[in-house]
Amino acid sequence: MPAQFAPLQNDTFIRALLRQPTDYTPVWLMRQAGRYLPEYNATRKRAGSFLGLAKNPDYATEVTLQPLARFPLDAAILFSDILTVPDAMGLGLYFADGEGPKFERPLRDEAAVLALRKPEPGSLQYVFDAVTQIRTELSGRVPLIGFSGSPWTLACYMVEGGGSSDYRTVKTMLYNRPDLMHHILRTNADAVAAYLNAQIDAGAQAVMIFDSWGGALADGAYQEFSLAYMRQIVSQLQHEKNGVRVPCIVFTKGGGLWLEQIADIGADAVGLDWTMGLSRARALVGERVALQGNLDPVVLFSSSDQIRAEVGKTLQAFGQPKAGNGHVFNLGHGISQFTPPSAVEVMVETVHQVSRAMRHPG
Amino acid sequence: MPAQFAPLQNDTFIRALLRQPTDYTPVWLMRQAGRYLPEYNATRKRAGSFLGLAKNPDYATEVTLQPLARFPLDAAILFSDILTVPDAMGLGLYFADGEGPKFERPLRDEAAVLALRKPEPGSLQYVFDAVTQIRTELSGRVPLIGFSGSPWTLACYMVEGGGSSDYRTVKTMLYNRPDLMHHILRTNADAVAAYLNAQIDAGAQAVMIFDSWGGALADGAYQEFSLAYMRQIVSQLQHEKNGVRVPCIVFTKGGGLWLEQIADIGADAVGLDWTMGLSRARALVGERVALQGNLDPVVLFSSSDQIRAEVGKTLQAFGQPKAGNGHVFNLGHGISQFTPPSAVEVMVETVHQVSRAMRHPG
Repeated sequence: MPAQFAPLQNDTFIRALLRQPTDYTPVWLMRQAGRYLPEYNATRKRAGSFLGLAKNPDYATEVTLQPLARFPLDAAILFSDILTVPDAMGLGLYFADGEGPKFERPLRDEAAVLALRKPEPGSLQYVFDAVTQIRTELSGRVPLIGFSGSPWTLACYMVEGGGSSDYRTVKTMLYNRPDLMHHILRTNADAVAAYLNAQIDAGAQAVMIFDSWGGALADGAYQEFSLAYMRQIVSQLQHEKNGVRVPCIVFTKGGGLWLEQIADIGADAVGLDWTMGLSRARALVGERVALQGNLDPVVLFSSSDQIRAEVGKTLQAFGQPKAGNGHVFNLGHGISQFTPPSAVEVMVETVHQVSRAMRHPG
Repeated sequence: MPAQFAPLQNDTFIRALLRQPTDYTPVWLMRQAGRYLPEYNATRKRAGSFLGLAKNPDYATEVTLQPLARFPLDAAILFSDILTVPDAMGLGLYFADGEGPKFERPLRDEAAVLALRKPEPGSLQYVFDAVTQIRTELSGRVPLIGFSGSPWTLACYMVEGGGSSDYRTVKTMLYNRPDLMHHILRTNADAVAAYLNAQIDAGAQAVMIFDSWGGALADGAYQEFSLAYMRQIVSQLQHEKNGVRVPCIVFTKGGGLWLEQIADIGADAVGLDWTMGLSRARALVGERVALQGNLDPVVLFSSSDQIRAEVGKTLQAFGQPKAGNGHVFNLGHGISQFTPPSAVEVMVETVHQVSRAMRHPG
């Protein structure tokens, strides 16, 4: 890691996460470096495969910076896979043609669970190298977000061996052998905390925990098997690096019902999907956390006028930011691979224009 | 329809929906007649296909009664497909091998939408015949539930042409051409209200509206494009037949965030999935509606002890029913086809035993 990175020129995103005043509402997109961009697909083709892309710091840097060349986004996010940690634990991540991620050695019995170990030192170095390289090449233009899947979300893939429509295998283990499930989650939480801290050491200026599948859990089970482990991670994170705050965002897709509890685990910001109105969310969390979200990604398939109208509604739902509140504009979930890039341009431009006008009326 | 059906012997389910005192908590299961039962699979094999089964009143009666022969359930539910109404509108329902339902003629453009008409009289007679036959053969043992998909849920299939992971096509129409979407939803709502009223005429003693995909909508869009049309249906329903109340249940999967609004549309009961705690739900709805739910279906893959523990937790979460409240025990979503029938036996027995003991302690 270089002794010194270039100073940050646009800190709007960081300020909003820390609930400090901003001139406008910052915006980035979940999966902003991805298949909806032809230049991403070209790089992926050169890399030969998704994992060839994700595991090579040069390629990861290239695709991380691509959306910033097109759109005036207020943050970059490390391009990486959500399953790097269990892959480094030896589960054997692979991608079958036209399918989602899979593991060669899923955790299906007690022996496999008890043999689970944290990743070997060095096994995730390619991620940290990418972080440092991206941060260097960003030259302080916007902050760089590091990320990880949540312990529960990683466990879903680790036990199911891939995606699932009902999470039957992993939830059966949860109900039948809660001891084994807690063993996996404890191991994952320690590994994720170390992983995010190493990303911060390597140059990440904010970190986000993606709990993509927490919303599949029953009330009660969510708190015990997902939220508790995200709380543990947040408590283990370094929240400052070289005297600068490193904010942390947690996002449980489908977690709106648990918003107040999520807001209490010590994170700086909570991500929301589109089912929760931002006005209600802001009233519920008060000044405890900033909020991130939450446009329906399908809005980006509509006309420019409609995109402007829906972006305006989202900004108005959050309302005028005041000292003590913060809003980062984002989609409520990852951008669809079929999105026209021109729609993203309209969205980003509208967020900036309208949110500036809201702060400086007349 | 016979001039008179046999008198109802077990009205526990109806009483709970109407928030009247009961001796125990009644229980039934969404998709209780289905593939987890070997006798269902045998009948389906004889019928030749799913639609051959669903469209034949003799077969529909046979499979509707199968779970009641095994388990002391407190209600029967008409065996039928959720897409009968759009099929009768001429969209051409079919099932591809190993896939979900599909439509030959989905609504993809303005011309198709504007050509949409309510079903021809008689086109759904096979459903009403099945209702009368089932009610007759039930001989008053337990009440018979009729049902329909919600206008929005039907529209998802009608526009997408089948299942979807992101509802991109139907939501693009919603955002881009809300006029067309409202046209579909108005037509569906009128058709569903007529369909449910005809089921009541044929003998259904309660009706349920399944809004399986309302939870995919953004806050705001849900109220405008799903809830408003369920409200319209409830207002058009006959709530009494031959001097007897016919209760109505609405269920939006993933609708916990909107529970208070759902409780206000005039239905007698609201169904809940497992993400919403029953204690909190009961506090939110007060004495406005009864609640139905909400065990995670995956609990049925665990040990008998674990099933008993989770059933007990669900009953305790709702708490002691008082005059003015009502609880119908159910899963939070349809039973999985892989469920062992013995687990259902444990669940039903536990619901009855524990809920009796809660009412008569010591």
